[in-house]
Amino acid sequence: MSFTQSLRRSAVDIEARLDFLIGQESGGRVPLRLRGAMRYAVLGGGKRIRPFLVIETAKMFGVPALGSIDAACTLECIHCYSLVHDDLPSMDNDEVRRGRPTLWKAYDEWTAILAGDALLTLAFEILARPETHSDPSVRAELVLLVARASGAAGMVGGQVVDLEADKLGVPAAPSLAHIRDLQAMKTGALIRVACEAGAALGRATTSERDALQRYGDALGFAFQIADDLLDADGDAATVGKAVGKDASAGKATLVSLMGIDAARAKLKEVETEAISSLAPFGSRAATLIDAARFVAQRTS
Amino acid sequence: MSFTQSLRRSAVDIEARLDFLIGQESGGRVPLRLRGAMRYAVLGGGKRIRPFLVIETAKMFGVPALGSIDAACTLECIHCYSLVHDDLPSMDNDEVRRGRPTLWKAYDEWTAILAGDALLTLAFEILARPETHSDPSVRAELVLLVARASGAAGMVGGQVVDLEADKLGVPAAPSLAHIRDLQAMKTGALIRVACEAGAALGRATTSERDALQRYGDALGFAFQIADDLLDADGDAATVGKAVGKDASAGKATLVSLMGIDAARAKLKEVETEAISSLAPFGSRAATLIDAARFVAQRTS
Repeated sequence: MSFTQSLRRSAVDIEARLDFLIGQESGGRVPLRLRGAMRYAVLGGGKRIRPFLVIETAKMFGVPALGSIDAACTLECIHCYSLVHDDLPSMDNDEVRRGRPTLWKAYDEWTAILAGDALLTLAFEILARPETHSDPSVRAELVLLVARASGAAGMVGGQVVDLEADKLGVPAAPSLAHIRDLQAMKTGALIRVACEAGAALGRATTSERDALQRYGDALGFAFQIADDLLDADGDAATVGKAVGKDASAGKATLVSLMGIDAARAKLKEVETEAISSLAPFGSRAATLIDAARFVAQRTS
Repeated sequence: MSFTQSLRRSAVDIEARLDFLIGQESGGRVPLRLRGAMRYAVLGGGKRIRPFLVIETAKMFGVPALGSIDAACTLECIHCYSLVHDDLPSMDNDEVRRGRPTLWKAYDEWTAILAGDALLTLAFEILARPETHSDPSVRAELVLLVARASGAAGMVGGQVVDLEADKLGVPAAPSLAHIRDLQAMKTGALIRVACEAGAALGRATTSERDALQRYGDALGFAFQIADDLLDADGDAATVGKAVGKDASAGKATLVSLMGIDAARAKLKEVETEAISSLAPFGSRAATLIDAARFVAQRTS
């Protein structure tokens, strides 16, 4: 099975499990409108790369997919909530996502805000449930890792820095280091924590965790450069959302700083960095190596 | 020391601890604007009744305040995030809260949304930290309890039901049972979980937990009736926010359903229900009994 086939098969399993997790939550007390909005936000397709990374990292340590899928799904809940909030009129004001109306366009702003809040909360509920892992210390650690990656010093903080530059004209020092720091918070933290969560589920050693952190860091950066390149020269129909937004917003990205060719070269370099971090794992890391190639070379 | 003195003294400790918890979070990576908004949202005063309930419930089982204050603070983070989001223009469109501009008025909408997201995430980060409790199974349980109370089947779900009636004219069957169910989600869940969290920290027995759940349920209902009464006949300067909003919005409350006098009688009944749930604890429950009286008789 090729890498893209594995990724697609995994996405089908994850979609089914997300559907189950949202559907069975807390009996019949969830208002229909809210459940519908949560489903719309989460079940709209997507590559499911973050949960895939959790599952594949945990597999390296002998954890079967069934033993990591719930934890994996929580990262997709958080990723999707962040998209829902980022798309709001007061933030990025995006009307199309994955080729269909964003949640606030399909419903309305208040429903989108609350559905995002509910998805974020659901992620922590799932992480804390005994079904996710039999050992409470693993569950508590997962909550801690995921909260740190998603919060004020991670994803949410990165979005604030990004919007400050965008809305308030706070000068974003356009250096490579600044751009890497920003993306490490906004996009990278959640990708990195996918690998860390897999390592926690697999009870990896400290040195294994360090290696996976380096991999996750590089992978997250590669993901963002690829995203910026797609925005700069991708095709809206293939990408599934509006393109050319960064340039028209004057956003500081690696592409605006270095130009397309140099950004492509940097992407190649970061891909290599990700792959070499996996050296200690030998052939066990074959899928994660493929994942790095896929992320760096993706066209949508 | 009188009950209101204890409550005020506890609020000072909680405010200081919240300040510390927001300030020390994840080193220097939190953007200044975000940290400022989080502080504005959380440190604006307030009675701190939810954290007080955590601390006082835990004390009944021999847990000193220092052993429960971090868990207690997380409920205030969640309460404050919910106020920040509820106040947004697309939701309740409130401009004044605790006698000063709401967060979105003081900053802007996107900052308010993200500061709310960050506070919700911070709550789970704190609950999962070893500093909050040495036993990871207690930490995982706290995360689970708090997530269930705050999410789609709890606080967020209640806000959706409330706004559906308000914005979309979805008919809220104006029965006592419906109003109690709605408030049990929107306001009650977080008050009840304060007592449950205290019981979890104190490793209470199942029957003790059941009694405290009944207490928390009744207390939450009393809190909401008192709130509705304040909205109906309170004074804006004393209450610290706009009053008369429910009636002008045509909102179904116990007051609109039964009238002020019958609502007052119901409040008295629920106060008695709360207090009698505490019978198994004898004199250990003195402070929680005072808390029920305070909640039912509050004027702000």
